[in-house]
Amino acid sequence: MSSAQSGNSAYGRKKFKRSPSHFTDRITADGADGWPVEAGRYRLVVSRACPWASRALISRRLLGLEAALSLAVVDPLQDDRSWRFTLDPGGRDPVLGIRYLSEAYDARETGYPGGVSVPAIVDVPSGRLVTNDYLQITLDLATEWTALHREGAPDLYPEALRDEIDEVIEGVYHDVNNGVYRAGFATDQQEYESAYRDVFRRLDWLSERLAGRRYLVGDTITEADIRLFTTLVRFDPVYHGHFKCNRSKLTEDPVLWAYARDLYQTPGFGDTVDFDHIKRHYYQVHTGINPTAIVPAGPDLSGWLTPHHRDQLGGRPFGDGTPPGPPPEAEHIPPAGRP
Amino acid sequence: MSSAQSGNSAYGRKKFKRSPSHFTDRITADGADGWPVEAGRYRLVVSRACPWASRALISRRLLGLEAALSLAVVDPLQDDRSWRFTLDPGGRDPVLGIRYLSEAYDARETGYPGGVSVPAIVDVPSGRLVTNDYLQITLDLATEWTALHREGAPDLYPEALRDEIDEVIEGVYHDVNNGVYRAGFATDQQEYESAYRDVFRRLDWLSERLAGRRYLVGDTITEADIRLFTTLVRFDPVYHGHFKCNRSKLTEDPVLWAYARDLYQTPGFGDTVDFDHIKRHYYQVHTGINPTAIVPAGPDLSGWLTPHHRDQLGGRPFGDGTPPGPPPEAEHIPPAGRP
Repeated sequence: MSSAQSGNSAYGRKKFKRSPSHFTDRITADGADGWPVEAGRYRLVVSRACPWASRALISRRLLGLEAALSLAVVDPLQDDRSWRFTLDPGGRDPVLGIRYLSEAYDARETGYPGGVSVPAIVDVPSGRLVTNDYLQITLDLATEWTALHREGAPDLYPEALRDEIDEVIEGVYHDVNNGVYRAGFATDQQEYESAYRDVFRRLDWLSERLAGRRYLVGDTITEADIRLFTTLVRFDPVYHGHFKCNRSKLTEDPVLWAYARDLYQTPGFGDTVDFDHIKRHYYQVHTGINPTAIVPAGPDLSGWLTPHHRDQLGGRPFGDGTPPGPPPEAEHIPPAGRP
Repeated sequence: MSSAQSGNSAYGRKKFKRSPSHFTDRITADGADGWPVEAGRYRLVVSRACPWASRALISRRLLGLEAALSLAVVDPLQDDRSWRFTLDPGGRDPVLGIRYLSEAYDARETGYPGGVSVPAIVDVPSGRLVTNDYLQITLDLATEWTALHREGAPDLYPEALRDEIDEVIEGVYHDVNNGVYRAGFATDQQEYESAYRDVFRRLDWLSERLAGRRYLVGDTITEADIRLFTTLVRFDPVYHGHFKCNRSKLTEDPVLWAYARDLYQTPGFGDTVDFDHIKRHYYQVHTGINPTAIVPAGPDLSGWLTPHHRDQLGGRPFGDGTPPGPPPEAEHIPPAGRP
């Protein structure tokens, strides 16, 4: 949920509060909201910088939805009109034909006053935004888009484990996914320290949980792992310094660091991560906390590719399924974004 | 050389350049500049936050000059009139009777337009600043104040090793001591990256040099170790995040981290370090790079007290001399400033 609005709220003198998603229509198998699952109809718009959008990127890869749900990647740097398609020829998304993601929001609701956020799913025929509900999008990809899943796709939200997954992701959301933002955008010392404590208390809890098991819930990759991963992969490059979550680096926790590397090296995870987009976005956009907009040259990222030995814990990454193949050529991460 | 001036220069659109010391009189055994070495006559004014001033703090302790050269410690937070004695009862230095260090500068030169910096040595009878020449002060404590050294004081600047010490400290000054400032106060990406490269290239060189020897030059503690230490001890708490020197933490380099711990645990080094002053100064004063003035709660500092095993490399910390005793009661670092 990277939006101009939530970004701006950091610079006011009020407590950081993440804006709720405004457009919560769901794309479902039965089309109850008027948006049936359909191959080729929708376009997923993401920033590779954004942890919330990156969840959808990973789910789409793991489930093999690349052909059914096309992808638009915005420039990691918003301008005053928010997310832009400046990476595309002519500065326009080649499928939607628009220059700003806000145009799809406007097509949906004239004069909508809220923030423009990613992930967003746009209905290609009408050019209208369907949903920016980042909490629901990945769950629906896992459970409603099943007819279009690849052969061997994993079950990322297994029914028998949903209560446990929901419980884990709730704590991870509050303390980790959003906790780092609360720390980084805090406007007073007390608010910051409270968020900092939440972040590391939960990371310690996660480290203990993951010491003896390969994945967060059950013995396969689930929604819970995806949600934790997108924060962990940004931790040392951004949250440690920029957001002052600096008790220790991810690389200093042997369990979490191995867990994160294991996922990074799993097809569908690391191949969605662009460290260049991540670093430039946070450091250049948040001039309220980094006025020089200088992007740190560190950290050394080469460790992401080192052996993790987590397979010794057992686990079946894809359950009865198989790993996805490589990403489509057009979606390969350029060298600047890789370790 | 922490001065309001050098701090301010960070916020302009020009390359960071450290101001030269303006008052370069020397206090010598022969009193050639009119300032003879004399017990009880001078007062050393420092901020425990400042790496340049902290060199003098360490030299004074190692040489046992505490009784001969009294100490004033300023508040780590300057205001618009610069360094203040707000830690003292009534906000006045009890010996000099002044509220701002600038009063001693003014007593020396009316209307002096330059920055007010520490370390500064003030002539107590006249209240006039004698010197703020941070590069010379420690050398003179080592070589001119010898008559007042404690029994067993080390030779911190041995004649036979001066060429080698001078060579080492020149590179350390440019790339490390001042390199971190050039990185942190850079106003464009290229200037920052150039400084960042200098910092880590020199740290790698130092790490290699120190892998097989306990101290930088010779087999005893010298001026060279003091100058490197005051930057290393600030590296993870400040320079890594605040100044974006984030290729890796000090704690990630086994050699430099053990070297720094060895010195920290040596009487005269760690007992001068106040991590609370260090962190509050940098993060609260440099609002040009940290507008929220929030002070990070990390890093975890407990590692500073862990075994370093550097004694296995041999070396004779104090040469033919002995370690200093504990610091005077009044100079003990409060718990908030210790690991």
